[in-house]
Amino acid sequence: MFLSILVCKAQLPASYVNPFIGTNEMGHTYPGATVPFGMVQLSPETDTIQYSVGHGYIKDVYRYCAGYQYSDKTIVGFSHTHFSGTGHSDLGDFLVMPTTGKIQLNPGTADDPGSGYRSSFSHDTEKASPGYYSVLLSDYNIKAELTSSARVGFHRYTFPETSQANIILDMVSGIYNYDGKVVWSSIRIENDTLVTGYRQTQGWARERIVYFAMVFSKPIRNYGCRDEGKVVYNDFYRKFNTEKDFPEMAGRKLKTYFSFDTKAGEQILVKFALSSVSNEGAIKNLETEIPTWDFDLVHQQAEDAWNKELCRITIKASDEKKIIFYTALYHAFLSPTLFMDVDGKYRGLDHNIHYADGFTNYTTFSLWDTYRALHPLFTLIQQKRTSDMINSMLAHQQQSVHHILPVWSHYANENWCMIGDHAVSVIADAYMKGIPGFDAQKALDACISSATYAPNDGIGDYMKFGYVPSDKSSNGASKTLEYAYDDYCISRMAEKMGKPEIASNFAKRAEAYNLIWDKSTGFMRAKRSDGTFQSPFDPLSTERQGFIEGNAWNYSFYVPQDPTKLIAMYGGNNKFISHLDSLFNIKLDEKHFAESEDITAAGLIGNYVHGNEPSHHVPYLYVFAGAPWKTQERIHQIVNSMYHNTTDGLCGNDDCGQMSAWYIFSSLGFYPVCPGSNEYVIGSPSVDKATLNLENGKQFSITAKNLSDKNIYIQQIRLNGLIYKKFIINQEDIMAGGTLEFVMGVKPKK
Amino acid sequence: MFLSILVCKAQLPASYVNPFIGTNEMGHTYPGATVPFGMVQLSPETDTIQYSVGHGYIKDVYRYCAGYQYSDKTIVGFSHTHFSGTGHSDLGDFLVMPTTGKIQLNPGTADDPGSGYRSSFSHDTEKASPGYYSVLLSDYNIKAELTSSARVGFHRYTFPETSQANIILDMVSGIYNYDGKVVWSSIRIENDTLVTGYRQTQGWARERIVYFAMVFSKPIRNYGCRDEGKVVYNDFYRKFNTEKDFPEMAGRKLKTYFSFDTKAGEQILVKFALSSVSNEGAIKNLETEIPTWDFDLVHQQAEDAWNKELCRITIKASDEKKIIFYTALYHAFLSPTLFMDVDGKYRGLDHNIHYADGFTNYTTFSLWDTYRALHPLFTLIQQKRTSDMINSMLAHQQQSVHHILPVWSHYANENWCMIGDHAVSVIADAYMKGIPGFDAQKALDACISSATYAPNDGIGDYMKFGYVPSDKSSNGASKTLEYAYDDYCISRMAEKMGKPEIASNFAKRAEAYNLIWDKSTGFMRAKRSDGTFQSPFDPLSTERQGFIEGNAWNYSFYVPQDPTKLIAMYGGNNKFISHLDSLFNIKLDEKHFAESEDITAAGLIGNYVHGNEPSHHVPYLYVFAGAPWKTQERIHQIVNSMYHNTTDGLCGNDDCGQMSAWYIFSSLGFYPVCPGSNEYVIGSPSVDKATLNLENGKQFSITAKNLSDKNIYIQQIRLNGLIYKKFIINQEDIMAGGTLEFVMGVKPKK
Repeated sequence: MFLSILVCKAQLPASYVNPFIGTNEMGHTYPGATVPFGMVQLSPETDTIQYSVGHGYIKDVYRYCAGYQYSDKTIVGFSHTHFSGTGHSDLGDFLVMPTTGKIQLNPGTADDPGSGYRSSFSHDTEKASPGYYSVLLSDYNIKAELTSSARVGFHRYTFPETSQANIILDMVSGIYNYDGKVVWSSIRIENDTLVTGYRQTQGWARERIVYFAMVFSKPIRNYGCRDEGKVVYNDFYRKFNTEKDFPEMAGRKLKTYFSFDTKAGEQILVKFALSSVSNEGAIKNLETEIPTWDFDLVHQQAEDAWNKELCRITIKASDEKKIIFYTALYHAFLSPTLFMDVDGKYRGLDHNIHYADGFTNYTTFSLWDTYRALHPLFTLIQQKRTSDMINSMLAHQQQSVHHILPVWSHYANENWCMIGDHAVSVIADAYMKGIPGFDAQKALDACISSATYAPNDGIGDYMKFGYVPSDKSSNGASKTLEYAYDDYCISRMAEKMGKPEIASNFAKRAEAYNLIWDKSTGFMRAKRSDGTFQSPFDPLSTERQGFIEGNAWNYSFYVPQDPTKLIAMYGGNNKFISHLDSLFNIKLDEKHFAESEDITAAGLIGNYVHGNEPSHHVPYLYVFAGAPWKTQERIHQIVNSMYHNTTDGLCGNDDCGQMSAWYIFSSLGFYPVCPGSNEYVIGSPSVDKATLNLENGKQFSITAKNLSDKNIYIQQIRLNGLIYKKFIINQEDIMAGGTLEFVMGVKPKK
Repeated sequence: MFLSILVCKAQLPASYVNPFIGTNEMGHTYPGATVPFGMVQLSPETDTIQYSVGHGYIKDVYRYCAGYQYSDKTIVGFSHTHFSGTGHSDLGDFLVMPTTGKIQLNPGTADDPGSGYRSSFSHDTEKASPGYYSVLLSDYNIKAELTSSARVGFHRYTFPETSQANIILDMVSGIYNYDGKVVWSSIRIENDTLVTGYRQTQGWARERIVYFAMVFSKPIRNYGCRDEGKVVYNDFYRKFNTEKDFPEMAGRKLKTYFSFDTKAGEQILVKFALSSVSNEGAIKNLETEIPTWDFDLVHQQAEDAWNKELCRITIKASDEKKIIFYTALYHAFLSPTLFMDVDGKYRGLDHNIHYADGFTNYTTFSLWDTYRALHPLFTLIQQKRTSDMINSMLAHQQQSVHHILPVWSHYANENWCMIGDHAVSVIADAYMKGIPGFDAQKALDACISSATYAPNDGIGDYMKFGYVPSDKSSNGASKTLEYAYDDYCISRMAEKMGKPEIASNFAKRAEAYNLIWDKSTGFMRAKRSDGTFQSPFDPLSTERQGFIEGNAWNYSFYVPQDPTKLIAMYGGNNKFISHLDSLFNIKLDEKHFAESEDITAAGLIGNYVHGNEPSHHVPYLYVFAGAPWKTQERIHQIVNSMYHNTTDGLCGNDDCGQMSAWYIFSSLGFYPVCPGSNEYVIGSPSVDKATLNLENGKQFSITAKNLSDKNIYIQQIRLNGLIYKKFIINQEDIMAGGTLEFVMGVKPKK
């Protein structure tokens, strides 16, 4: 492995990454600087639309989930935390913006950037690569450069000559912001170069606190603060002018500035460390991770870190393909994010400070998305991190007042976003694959605790009725199907652990899909607590039909734990194939198209909605019905039509890497239709060669002989040189190292 | 000492304490349960008047500095933190109230207690003694009893038979409350008896956070929560009914309840622990301090703790005098308050969690008040705690972004209340008296750092002009006088430490009073930065004359570091005596009386305002002018007319024990006119006998032979049996143990 990684690094896969992919429209990715799975995501905000509480979903807010839209003309500033590809948001902590001249403490508008601190910019001056971002802020003639270590953002600003160079720190600005989101914030000017503080927000994360330590390369000449939410309760502060050079500021709406003189071309550097624990923790992170002022060195280290991680897969393909592939791998390695200080301390879900004993703690688990392909990808090429992530989820479960595993965990909060209990899938998948480093008994207990916690999202009714009745819980049909799959995972794990009673109990629950199968319509369908199906029934509608991010059409394919049974329910292979064909061939009318949120038109093939995760395994189902060439065809269609090297190259939210992980697997030629089964279903490769450089020191190579735009059908497969007849490959086959050779051809091999 | 303490405890001095003294009108004391210097002060609130931001001083808010006014007819509930005797306020954290029947989550009004959870009560059913409080909540027929350990409040509620026994936990209620004071709060129902949480407020303390752990003796049947400040930002919570039996609550305005069934006479007990560090810290405090459910045992332990502390002084006097004296001693031992968890962790001024290495950390330093007599009292009978308090102040200084000692420190905040730099006085006084246990060099550095920190409250101008100009800083004249005294303290300390240069520098600064002496009027007088005195000049006015909590008349006596010089400025003993006589003899007109806030008419003798601290040393100044009999007369007058065994028995705010410490010293027969000097000025004793049981194992006894209402004049003094001619006694004389015998008579001995 060592040699191959050296070879790979010589090819510098990071140089193929285009961080702008997905930054326009629906991708919701960000172009800024970060390291693999880093805690800091230092990236420009091009707007900070404010959410109006009580007005529900607002499209303009949604556009800015990652703070950046490529089509925008101005930059508001650079903040230190961003989600990659989410469909709901938060973060945008600690917006820093360099300016010159008059101090302006509000961002101003995109139409009139001069009305605030924001600046116009041109994409011509903008560069982004893994661990680096730069742009010319043209209104100020300031070149801004960003890089990062895991916990510390590093800014380098090249100023013109001015007696009034300013660095604004806006403590109010944020993503998915609203009036009152910052419940408290605090700043201390510790000395003429060091500033510490924290802010606490109520948003998607109900109670979130982030501490920081910020150090300037040059002494602050003077500084100040405006508290736009000032409550003069403690009159005794009146003896001070707290707006100017007063070293402690606190309030709900703090806008601060730090001023300097600069010569032409003078650079002011800012290191900005985060901590979930304390100011002290942030200072320790800063001093440990970036002791230097050598920006270029830190940039190089970030790039090296990316090259090292991206080398876990080496591919042979066209440059364009390499760009799309490595950008996908880059996006796959952004989340979950590191969530602990250099000393192992982190904030727990119980609000206490914990020490991560023997593992690295992570947060940003968007599990409804990522259990499907991202975590299975990690079981191949991020095994150490997989056990760290499982230990993080187990700690979460132990700290949970509900004693359940995370649903959408984020900075010591449970965001409760989306449905199911898919931490169970991640755990069982890793356990079944023999990934070491976590306590299996503790893990099984945690899974069972989650799967039987009645108050959570219909679980009580699920246990009582056998399904989640649609009159008791919204999206009951989706929940029924997903809980059933999760129960299968527990069953598999318990079986392997020699606990047949638990296994059998959960195997029974795993058949719950039967209860919402409406034979008369041939769809999964929401059922009420009185046992009747919900009416009126519109299998194309995604609204009030008991499904979420999908309709009955999409969700009726969701029995990953037993596709054979599903096919039988449809009356056998031919009928199933024909039904599945219809999914791709339906022409959606305007009403039903409008309902398919989160995706662009490019993300649709008929009623197949690639931008929404419930579809992700669906093209692979042809294989189970004996029509692998149909899978091969659709996979190539999706790979080629829905992933581009363009700013709008993602057809839907990247969803913390799930969309990207789908692409990586599908490009390699296989996909985990059912995590927990140890099986990957063979699709059709779209790279000439790929090598997985495994952590066990082995290599697994995939070659696609004769692959071309037209030669997309598999003619022959050889595993380790021997003809391979199955369209399923196991985890063990891959982890043992070896070769998987495809011979491709222009005709479907029926 | 051991024997004498046994003897003392047999007399149970705690039984003489009447916690109701000062609970009516101006005393601002609270009647609830606490232990000496305890972190928890569990006490009833009789009202929770809300402050309207921007409306300034509101009398009704001010009345409730301690949450309780004896004249009230209803009790709102029992909260866990209270100041004793302050003239500004905060606290009232975690209001608990037992009720029956319909759940009401607002307090209702005093006029119509049925409109909320509050209850009527009668003083006939109310009992208070050190470490214990009880009352019958007549609207519910619930007997409420409270006791406490240092960090844990212990409630015992005796319910009638009911299917709806409720315990309300109001997270919004607070003292000096206003809409928005709670910036965030959070609650977790950990299991069916344990609840944890925290609340964060912005009040007098700018950013204060208190964690709690609350445990019930009986499983909660059901519980619920109303969030009156609900912001539905995270829509995903909508899948839960967060108002009923949902175990995690968070928001700005949380009102919660816990319900039970009870049989007639059934008791539900609640242990309620606090921590400044974390929920985990609160749980640890709870488990360590009160592992039992035996309420009576904990009550006994609290009473024992009080008897032990109160035995530091034993007195022989009438029962009435004993009540007043021991209640004063009780009040003197309430503040400063413990501020760390059982494991030594505490929250620092820098927002970080610190470990108190080798000392016990305290907060609630009301130093402008308490440096005068309370801390000097501690140098005699709380030496160990004195060094702990100094170490706490030094830690504060090290954590301060200003690098200065506390002014008014409170729960890891600097409240900036009142003026001067009097931590310096406390430190220098202790150092001069040889109290061990703190680092003198570090302490001197901290004092100098504070005394030379230009941005703080006129210090920069004080260093520039030699005085604090009244046009540059409000109350400049008071500040000039007080800084000058503090500088004397530093000078003394530096001299003893062998640092003549520092000593001489600060000795020079200590003469600053000369610069604001207006010879033409014979008063200290505010001076402007151009060197002219401020006009118009009204020596009786307390408004806009450059003085605070006093007028030119009062403050002109403030040169404690050099009374001889002051007397000379007045033209010698006779002129000074006559001037001082006038102070007591002036009849204040209505306008000037109205200006004397914080005090009742009973607290005035002419223009001598005992309720405001700048007067406290003044009656002792006759001694320096050779008229000790005049001191003796005035001391007896004040002792007898301004301290009573009645609910309004304090003529002004007790000010964290300063008023009480004045009484203790004055009753013993001496007073620390100038802390830092090691000298006490002899007044006139008003107890027949008193014994100080010193921590060094020695005893110092004071006897007043022939003392009576009329025999208030000292005829003779013997120290250790030898005739003593001076009216000054030193710290060394007392700490050496021995006897001080006064022979009293009816005639002044001139």
